[in-house]
Amino acid sequence: MATRRLRARGRRAGQRDTRGLLLDATAALLSERSNLDVSLSDIAKRSGLNSALIKYYFGNKDGLFLALLERVADKAMGELQSLVDMPISADQKLRIHISGIINTYFRSPYVNHLIKHMIVASTPEAADRVAEIFVKPMIDVYHKIIAQGITEQRFRPIEPGMLYYSLVGACEHIFYASYSLPRTFGVGELSEELKQRYLEHVVDISMNGILVARAR
Amino acid sequence: MATRRLRARGRRAGQRDTRGLLLDATAALLSERSNLDVSLSDIAKRSGLNSALIKYYFGNKDGLFLALLERVADKAMGELQSLVDMPISADQKLRIHISGIINTYFRSPYVNHLIKHMIVASTPEAADRVAEIFVKPMIDVYHKIIAQGITEQRFRPIEPGMLYYSLVGACEHIFYASYSLPRTFGVGELSEELKQRYLEHVVDISMNGILVARAR
Repeated sequence: MATRRLRARGRRAGQRDTRGLLLDATAALLSERSNLDVSLSDIAKRSGLNSALIKYYFGNKDGLFLALLERVADKAMGELQSLVDMPISADQKLRIHISGIINTYFRSPYVNHLIKHMIVASTPEAADRVAEIFVKPMIDVYHKIIAQGITEQRFRPIEPGMLYYSLVGACEHIFYASYSLPRTFGVGELSEELKQRYLEHVVDISMNGILVARAR
Repeated sequence: MATRRLRARGRRAGQRDTRGLLLDATAALLSERSNLDVSLSDIAKRSGLNSALIKYYFGNKDGLFLALLERVADKAMGELQSLVDMPISADQKLRIHISGIINTYFRSPYVNHLIKHMIVASTPEAADRVAEIFVKPMIDVYHKIIAQGITEQRFRPIEPGMLYYSLVGACEHIFYASYSLPRTFGVGELSEELKQRYLEHVVDISMNGILVARAR
């Protein structure tokens, strides 16, 4: 009995490892590219596993992509929850959060490409799943941070759902509209320096928008 | 001589009318849809003209779409210039401008779909042309409005190029991320009432972000 249980546990751990290795390989390959053009055989090769395992665990490439997004969301929402639980002001929490969003877009653009793909090119169910794992938990966190900021008499009353769209839109647009950077800033792509200037601009203008005037 | 000149003028006017009729038909059809799935024969049928004329004037569907975007940009930038020239405060100009962007996204979503298509699925030249006709003139206008606002001692110093991305991103994101509306606001699509609430939120938070504290 004990042996059988141990063996079953071993099989489950092996499954988790195989899934994880395939997701690791996908994330690594996507991080190296500016698009989602990665084949199942590329992923199999990078992971050292057979591509049939991708079909076995994820069904198809979109299934694999969604599983990768779920892992990314899990980690990001865990970090966001840790931020909410920190013994610092709501003001500081929001500044750290805004910096985190922009730095993630900058360092891991594939996450944004995956989300875009799920919304535009995949099924309505996949788009709804993205909303469930990314949008809903963020708005729940915004509820908590705004409530804390109001208690601290530093935030104006702002509707969390509305703030989600306006803030994420502000963080994201320079990445989405990168095609226009040659005409606006005379550069082919977003440099670390320009990203940092944009980050400071978004933090500055958003925090000024949210804080009560006397709190600045 | 006079007759020949008149005839040539008549031909030019006829060309303008034909081009204009084809663009009118395209705009009308796109306004009725939630995507860009419109065929050349649909457009020909709606305009009452032969679809060969589309190829003659615009080359292909992307050429037609770009020409339509140029006409939309021409009109929008003309209106924006009129706004800049109005004898009102920079504060009022920016509020009107933000409302204008959000109302345009709401009333004519096809413009946004066309821009997205040009950026993502068309040629790099088409994407650059979009930046030239939409992004560059808007940033030029932001330069003027911000300079006026600073002279009036109402605006903090804000970099116009940075403001372009953060403000347009804030205006746009609820439309881009409409897939998440069922989970965030429990609605299938953006209603007039929700759009209006979002508009007021973006005006409020942006103006608070831009204005000096004592100017509110």
